[in-house]
Amino acid sequence: MSETEKTGRTLKVSWEDPRALAEAGRSLSGLEYLRKIVAGELPRPPISALMNFGLVELEEGRAVFAVEPAEYHYNPIGVVHGGLAATLLDSAMGCAVHTHMPAGGGYTTLEAKTHLTRAISAKTGVLRAIGKVLHVGSRVATAEGRLVDVAGKLYAHATTTCMVLSER
Amino acid sequence: MSETEKTGRTLKVSWEDPRALAEAGRSLSGLEYLRKIVAGELPRPPISALMNFGLVELEEGRAVFAVEPAEYHYNPIGVVHGGLAATLLDSAMGCAVHTHMPAGGGYTTLEAKTHLTRAISAKTGVLRAIGKVLHVGSRVATAEGRLVDVAGKLYAHATTTCMVLSER
Amino acid sequence: MSETEKTGRTLKVSWEDPRALAEAGRSLSGLEYLRKIVAGELPRPPISALMNFGLVELEEGRAVFAVEPAEYHYNPIGVVHGGLAATLLDSAMGCAVHTHMPAGGGYTTLEAKTHLTRAISAKTGVLRAIGKVLHVGSRVATAEGRLVDVAGKLYAHATTTCMVLSER
Amino acid sequence: MSETEKTGRTLKVSWEDPRALAEAGRSLSGLEYLRKIVAGELPRPPISALMNFGLVELEEGRAVFAVEPAEYHYNPIGVVHGGLAATLLDSAMGCAVHTHMPAGGGYTTLEAKTHLTRAISAKTGVLRAIGKVLHVGSRVATAEGRLVDVAGKLYAHATTTCMVLSER
Repeated sequence: MSETEKTGRTLKVSWEDPRALAEAGRSLSGLEYLRKIVAGELPRPPISALMNFGLVELEEGRAVFAVEPAEYHYNPIGVVHGGLAATLLDSAMGCAVHTHMPAGGGYTTLEAKTHLTRAISAKTGVLRAIGKVLHVGSRVATAEGRLVDVAGKLYAHATTTCMVLSER
Repeated sequence: MSETEKTGRTLKVSWEDPRALAEAGRSLSGLEYLRKIVAGELPRPPISALMNFGLVELEEGRAVFAVEPAEYHYNPIGVVHGGLAATLLDSAMGCAVHTHMPAGGGYTTLEAKTHLTRAISAKTGVLRAIGKVLHVGSRVATAEGRLVDVAGKLYAHATTTCMVLSER
Repeated sequence: MSETEKTGRTLKVSWEDPRALAEAGRSLSGLEYLRKIVAGELPRPPISALMNFGLVELEEGRAVFAVEPAEYHYNPIGVVHGGLAATLLDSAMGCAVHTHMPAGGGYTTLEAKTHLTRAISAKTGVLRAIGKVLHVGSRVATAEGRLVDVAGKLYAHATTTCMVLSER
Repeated sequence: MSETEKTGRTLKVSWEDPRALAEAGRSLSGLEYLRKIVAGELPRPPISALMNFGLVELEEGRAVFAVEPAEYHYNPIGVVHGGLAATLLDSAMGCAVHTHMPAGGGYTTLEAKTHLTRAISAKTGVLRAIGKVLHVGSRVATAEGRLVDVAGKLYAHATTTCMVLSER
């Protein structure tokens, strides 16, 4: 299984073959595939083990990831690197789009923009990145995301453009 | 020191106290501070150990990071997660802005947008994220970044808005 | 008064001195100032006459503009230019931020990103650009906007970063 | 012909049927079509007459528009509305992408982000929006743009994502 273990200032990260994971997804709709990851029937992908975040909620057009910001996410200026918010929001928005894809279909992210509205530290506590689809057409989808703490305070928000890839 | 060791599908990441690092930066100009990180006189920050990328070149208004995309950067759809490009470009653009900051000054990233123009895999080889300042004023700075392989092929590009924080 | 008159393929646009308008705003809070424009007690600004759109609703943190897309908004590829959506959404988001500014304060837009999700033509009918503040701090504010038709169908959406300018 | 005439605080704008213009473009490559607009063999599109800007330079992968910012471009806070920069940069980037399209092909803009780095007024003088293609593939293209004055000073910059539409 994918695991992330912290001991002092050392992190040990294990993951499973991501091609096997992607392969498993090919015969499932986006929603079925991602539900298996939420349920733990499929391993979380490597990036998710590496940065220690997880997909925790899923419905059509909406996906939620959770993370507990930690010291290992810090940048050189003494707070959590903006890349954590960008990666989480990208994941939440991309998976929200993915829930609309039929088996054999897919998507790819063309661009994403992230606004950082509040500094994140190891004291912030659990954050949830909530992604929602705004538009889904036959060739393009857009989505938005919000990164909030347990009290609903906003730490970052984002939008993305994805290209819809049809079955071949 | 900050270290990243890979054994099979396990990664062991070690880092140093990021507050000590940020503290060291307080009495130096941005350029002096970041040069010490390039030279290895200061440890690379935790996020840099975690995602295994490094600051490799620096001059006023320009910063370059390098990474070798690997399996541990993969997303659930079988390629490197877009968050790697976003994090690297954010680092490169932020550090490019940071080179303009005097001792006691600082900056914070307000937003960044990343375009993903080509899929990245573990076979892509070393990528360089090149950040350049486009505008720097007393309150706001903007920068752009490009993520290219050794042949100069473009994998992603980005722009950012940073707020300049003056000495208090 | 500011006027826009269309005769065949000719448009006659009149406006009032924008410095007088800006001057009038200096002693009012953002909300008071913009309410006078909605009420017609102050003239709409030149750009609003030129592109023939207007501020129609206003409350703290929210502003709505309306436009009827027309042939004079067309680009060379036979539909309304994306600049109309960008300009309207920028106006709606900027004014939403402006409602939070006290008398003597102000704001300036640092960046805005607009997603165009559906083509707009002269047959689309009235569109409303709804801007909402997402974050407002002492130095920075962010907002989002949606461009929808009377049935609520989404034509474009956007986000922006504004810098808050304090009283001097 | 498309004309824009200013008398005091009144502007008279005339344009030609944009469908005829778009029709003319259907049998030409993007480069041929846009060159006819630069040469005045085809009328400038309505939006270009309305906002009084024009396409002035063109080569494969690059397009330049020029405008003289004027009072009729003003917003309610006493400077030129950010929508002018957004519209011009969108035009320059879109036309840069358009130069790569074969006869029968086309493109549509998915999103554009504009950074405003300096206030623009009626005293700024002529501005040029320079659009350049960064990436062009079979389904997606990206481009960047800069808005500069005659001395090369930067007023705004932008990036965009376009979808490439193939011949049917």
